[in-house]
Amino acid sequence: MGGMLKPIAWTGETVRLLDQTQLPRQTVYVDISDEVQMYDAIRRLVVRGAPAIGVAAGFGAYLGISRGKPVDEVCDYLATSRPTAVNLFWSLDRVRKIGAFGPERVLEECLKMLAEMEGTIQAIGEHGLALLEACTGVLTHCNAGALAGTGALAPMLLGHERGRKFNVFVDETRPLLQGSRITAYELKEAGVPVTLICDNMAAAVMAQKKIDACIVGADRIAANGDTANKIGTLAVAIAAKHFNVPFYVAAPVSTIDFACASGAGIPIEQRSAEEVSSFNAKPTAPEGVGVYNPAFDVTPAALITAIITENGVAKPPFEQSLRSMMGR
Amino acid sequence: MGGMLKPIAWTGETVRLLDQTQLPRQTVYVDISDEVQMYDAIRRLVVRGAPAIGVAAGFGAYLGISRGKPVDEVCDYLATSRPTAVNLFWSLDRVRKIGAFGPERVLEECLKMLAEMEGTIQAIGEHGLALLEACTGVLTHCNAGALAGTGALAPMLLGHERGRKFNVFVDETRPLLQGSRITAYELKEAGVPVTLICDNMAAAVMAQKKIDACIVGADRIAANGDTANKIGTLAVAIAAKHFNVPFYVAAPVSTIDFACASGAGIPIEQRSAEEVSSFNAKPTAPEGVGVYNPAFDVTPAALITAIITENGVAKPPFEQSLRSMMGR
Repeated sequence: MGGMLKPIAWTGETVRLLDQTQLPRQTVYVDISDEVQMYDAIRRLVVRGAPAIGVAAGFGAYLGISRGKPVDEVCDYLATSRPTAVNLFWSLDRVRKIGAFGPERVLEECLKMLAEMEGTIQAIGEHGLALLEACTGVLTHCNAGALAGTGALAPMLLGHERGRKFNVFVDETRPLLQGSRITAYELKEAGVPVTLICDNMAAAVMAQKKIDACIVGADRIAANGDTANKIGTLAVAIAAKHFNVPFYVAAPVSTIDFACASGAGIPIEQRSAEEVSSFNAKPTAPEGVGVYNPAFDVTPAALITAIITENGVAKPPFEQSLRSMMGR
Repeated sequence: MGGMLKPIAWTGETVRLLDQTQLPRQTVYVDISDEVQMYDAIRRLVVRGAPAIGVAAGFGAYLGISRGKPVDEVCDYLATSRPTAVNLFWSLDRVRKIGAFGPERVLEECLKMLAEMEGTIQAIGEHGLALLEACTGVLTHCNAGALAGTGALAPMLLGHERGRKFNVFVDETRPLLQGSRITAYELKEAGVPVTLICDNMAAAVMAQKKIDACIVGADRIAANGDTANKIGTLAVAIAAKHFNVPFYVAAPVSTIDFACASGAGIPIEQRSAEEVSSFNAKPTAPEGVGVYNPAFDVTPAALITAIITENGVAKPPFEQSLRSMMGR
C-alpha cells in the first residue's frame, strides 16, 4: 500500500500531524513541539483513531520529557486527553517503563511504535482480504483507516491494488463526519470506488442486498469480544444481523483490554451538545434543546462475526480466540 | 392542543405556508398565489409531510383553476411535484371530481380538507396516547407532527397537556435534519422535554433501556402494512425489534394505498448528492465522491407493532385491520 496517507511523522524536531479536522477541504499539517500542544491536538481530533492517538500520545510524552518534565507527570497528563482509548494507556505505559533511560531512548521507542503501527495495518489488510474473498459491496462506519493508524480499510486498499473489485459504502458518521471527511477521502485518494451514505441509510442499503460484509474499527475490545467503537456501530451491527450480513471488527491487538471483562466496564465519553445541535457554528436545532452525544457505543460480541487483528482472525467464542491472538 | 403550529392557512387571497426550510432559526411565512409557486414550495420542502403536501397541492390546484387553468392540466402538473406521497394524488383526485363545479366549490373542498387534517391529528393523538399509557421514553424519527399535517407527535403533545411525563428522543434525521429543525422545535414550543440525538444513536439509546416505544409517521402504507417513510425509519424499526421495543406508525387513513399490495410497489424518490456531501453549501466530503441518497425506505409490516390512524389502531395482520379502518 504505497500511497497510504500518514497521520503522524517525526521531523527530527517536531511531531508532524495531518490536521484531520481540515479534511477533506484542505491537507494541512501541524507541527507539535510540546506535550500541551499534543494534548490539545488529541482532544480536538486533529489526530484521531485509537492506535494513532496512542502513538501521538507517546510522542507527546517524549516532547515533555525532552523538555525536562518528569515521566509520570507528563504521562498522567496525556492519559486524560481522551477517556476511552486503551491504546493511549498502552503506549504511555511503554514510555513509563523506559522513561528512566532518558529522552533518546523514549524517542527510539516512539519511532518503533510508529513503525509497528504501519506494519500492523499491512498485516490486518492481508488477513481481512482473505476473509472478504467473495465480497464486493462492503460497508464501513467512521474512519478506521490508515489516518486513524489502523487497518479496517486496508483489506479493500490492498485488494484494490491487486485488481479486486470493491464498492465501499461509507457511513458519513455523525456528528463529526469522519466517514465523509476522512474515510471517503482515503479511499478516493487510493482509487477505490466509494458510495457515501448517511448513517441512517445503511439498513436500507443492506435490505437491497448491496452489502456483502461490514467492517469497522474498534476503540476498545473487552476480553469477551464486546467492542466499543464510534457511536452508530451498534446500529450497523444490529442491521447486519437482521440481514445476515457478516460483521467484522478490524483492530490491532493493542486495542484488546483483557482487564475489561465485558462492554459493561467500558466508560463512554460524552461530548458537547453543540456537535449535534449546530454545524459549522450555525444552529440546526432550537436553542437550548436537550442533546445526548455519546462518542461511542458498545457492540456485544454476539453481533460480531470475527475480529481481524495483525496476528490473525479471532472467531467466537472470543474469550479463547482473543487470548490466542496475543500469544503469537 | 391549542398552541399547535399551523403549516398551512388560507388568507382569503393566498395560501400562507410556514417556510419549514427556515426552521428553527426563523419563523417565516410565504404567501403562495399560483400553482407554479405551490409546485416549487412542495418541491423545495417549504411544505412537507404527506398530509400537508396533499392539502397544499389541493390549494395549489384551486389557485390554478381560479386563474382559468383546466382542472386536469393543473392537477397533472402538481401530481409530479413529489413522487412518493399518495396523499398528493388523493387530494388532487378530490379536486378533479368537483372541478367542473367551478373554483368556489374547489376552495370549499380545500378548506374542508384542511379542517379534516386538523381533526385527524387530534384523533390520532387520542388513539396513540391510549397505546402509550405505560411509556415515558419515546423515540421519533423525522417530522410527522402538526407541521407535517399529521399526528405522530400528537399523543405526546396531548399527554403533556394532560400532565403525562414524556421524554421524547428525536432523531436529527439526516440529510435534511427535519428532526432537529422541526420536530425538536414543535415539541420544545409545546414544552415537552426533548432529547436530540444523531440517527446513529437510536440503537445505543434503546440498549440503555431509555426507550419504551418508537413512533413514526408514514409517507405511504401498502395494503399489507409495509410502510414507506423517511430514510432511516427501517433502521429504527430493526433496532426496536432487536430490543423488544414496540414500533408504531401513526398516519391518517389517506396514507394507506390499497392499490399497492406491498412495499415492493412503492417507488423511492432519489434526491441530489449535494444534500449528503455538503452542508450549508460547504462541502463535507471529497469533491465528486459517489453518493446514494434515497428520500425514503420501506419498513416491512413484520417490524410494525401497530398502525395508529384517526379511525383507530390497526394491529397485525394488517391486510384485514387496515381495511377495517376505512369502513369506520
